Amino acid sequence: MTARNEVDLIHPVILCGGGGTRLWPFSRRAVPKPFLPLVSEETLFEQAVRRVAGHPQFAPPIVVAGSAHANLVMAQLAGAPGARLVIEPDARNTAPAIGLAASLLPEDAVMLVCPSDHHVVDPSAFRAAALVAADIAREGYLVSFGIAADHPETGYGYLQHGEPLEGGYTIRRFVEKPDLATAQSYVASGEYSWNGGIFAFRVRDLLAELNKHRPDMARLVAAAIDRGEAEGASFHPAREPFAAIDGDSIDYAVMENAARVAMVPVQMGWSDIGNWASLAAALAHEADADGNFVRGGVADLAQCSGVLAMTDGPRISAVGLSNISIIVSGGEVLITSHEHAQMVGKLPGASEQ
Amino acid sequence: MTARNEVDLIHPVILCGGGGTRLWPFSRRAVPKPFLPLVSEETLFEQAVRRVAGHPQFAPPIVVAGSAHANLVMAQLAGAPGARLVIEPDARNTAPAIGLAASLLPEDAVMLVCPSDHHVVDPSAFRAAALVAADIAREGYLVSFGIAADHPETGYGYLQHGEPLEGGYTIRRFVEKPDLATAQSYVASGEYSWNGGIFAFRVRDLLAELNKHRPDMARLVAAAIDRGEAEGASFHPAREPFAAIDGDSIDYAVMENAARVAMVPVQMGWSDIGNWASLAAALAHEADADGNFVRGGVADLAQCSGVLAMTDGPRISAVGLSNISIIVSGGEVLITSHEHAQMVGKLPGASEQ
Repeated sequence: MTARNEVDLIHPVILCGGGGTRLWPFSRRAVPKPFLPLVSEETLFEQAVRRVAGHPQFAPPIVVAGSAHANLVMAQLAGAPGARLVIEPDARNTAPAIGLAASLLPEDAVMLVCPSDHHVVDPSAFRAAALVAADIAREGYLVSFGIAADHPETGYGYLQHGEPLEGGYTIRRFVEKPDLATAQSYVASGEYSWNGGIFAFRVRDLLAELNKHRPDMARLVAAAIDRGEAEGASFHPAREPFAAIDGDSIDYAVMENAARVAMVPVQMGWSDIGNWASLAAALAHEADADGNFVRGGVADLAQCSGVLAMTDGPRISAVGLSNISIIVSGGEVLITSHEHAQMVGKLPGASEQ
Repeated sequence: MTARNEVDLIHPVILCGGGGTRLWPFSRRAVPKPFLPLVSEETLFEQAVRRVAGHPQFAPPIVVAGSAHANLVMAQLAGAPGARLVIEPDARNTAPAIGLAASLLPEDAVMLVCPSDHHVVDPSAFRAAALVAADIAREGYLVSFGIAADHPETGYGYLQHGEPLEGGYTIRRFVEKPDLATAQSYVASGEYSWNGGIFAFRVRDLLAELNKHRPDMARLVAAAIDRGEAEGASFHPAREPFAAIDGDSIDYAVMENAARVAMVPVQMGWSDIGNWASLAAALAHEADADGNFVRGGVADLAQCSGVLAMTDGPRISAVGLSNISIIVSGGEVLITSHEHAQMVGKLPGASEQ
């Protein structure tokens, strides 16, 4: 075995944005989704860190988070020595966040961009795909993970496969959230994967494409870095240029405009835990014989099936319910059918918090 | 018009027994079902009193209640001048309670026994039926209200009509709670009514039948009265003989054994509010366009129909539910389908309170 030097290592960049109103009332503005123990006793953020931290092919991660959550990040970063934290002065979507992290890395390094609010059942498959994606990135591609689309989900974007590459494909087309019939045809065709928001980029390629397609954003990101301040393991980009950025996602700002884009198919038990129904699905393997799952306190369930019950104190008693989540948290009581779980984010409680 | 004398008046006897575990967690041992504002801002007990109090054919009521609830009764008896209270030293079911009240009334008086935990939409129909029942009682019948059976309820006892009387029928047969097929055949036949636990008796007939079929009970009731103590408008039967009674319902102890039993059919929008589903049904006329009904606090309901939501504080948020009751009360959270509402009484929370 040869020791890898810093450029060979993959540099994880863990993004901590996203509000998660659809997981209200458990997820709140003060403690949003990444920092909650949703799928296990670890938080989604802790799981995201542990997927890479300490593995020999990965450098210590760079975490990008808002200032409101810096303390949460520090508290939950215990298992990642050498990690760095970039504290965004404002939320400007993923493209500027990724730009900040890229600017702090060597030009030839490969960065692996990971959302921290997703769940992955199989971290080994994740890491294996990251190695493949990094190799493709070193050939100058901007690489997206293509999540195996095992059902016709209408809540995700899709990637259409193009020409084969070693371990992946070029991307022929990015597709916005499709309607159900279109999603069904995608799944049937076998040519489409979900766009999970996980990327591998060589730093200089990413910065070049950002500069090409969003020159104003690239300039303001560079200014925020130039005029920013390091403080121990934390970096504070300058607020004034960063706040002036017209925020955008990395997909819109870069991926959909770049010439050399690729994808690596991966099957790793991925879920974005986008609402209570998808959390219930992610927990299904731990449910009891009736498909019920209780967390946090006492729930007496009679004639119930497929019920997810979480409470931070008050006992829950339920009779005769199917495929429903019951969440008692912070003095709020939410009951939602799995079928309509997507609507939770539009409830008055979820939007006023 | 001629003035009625005391014997002509009907003497309401309002019974306050019954635990109501199926309406947990709103109904508790300390404040059981009769004393809660379930169907309106008045409690069921207040409604039972107001159905008769102040109407010219009715004497002031006698209320029979357990000592644990005497203060609740007094507080809720405001609108009934002249009312008397019999405080049971122990709960011994309905036959002894009725025996106590009968012993405090003139021999030729007609008593009207009314549970206090039922709902009646049409009090005029109730009073009209009471007058008819009293007339039949004056001919020496023990008379039961026969509630119009508008659906094949399996939770009630049924009365089969016998020979016609002026305004009613003799009772051919008492039937215990039937199975669904039997209940359907009863409703289809038109020969059966529900046994609602409302009775008219001439005092001396009731006491004679009690003495005949339950001589021990009759003797102990008489002893409890003889050795009891009056205290203002309250009467305290002696504990020692009363506690020795082998308690039983008036149906088992007397009605099913008596020779001259009759029933008066009545259609008055009756419900025993036996569980959350029947409360939801009783409130249906006040529900919104989607059949939802909210009481006590804030409930934000999206894509819901037939939902009854009651809270004593915490906001309820619900999405995509049908025919479900959500009750937040005293730090407990209950969610039950209307279909399985009968099982609520068997929940750990309902039985341990």
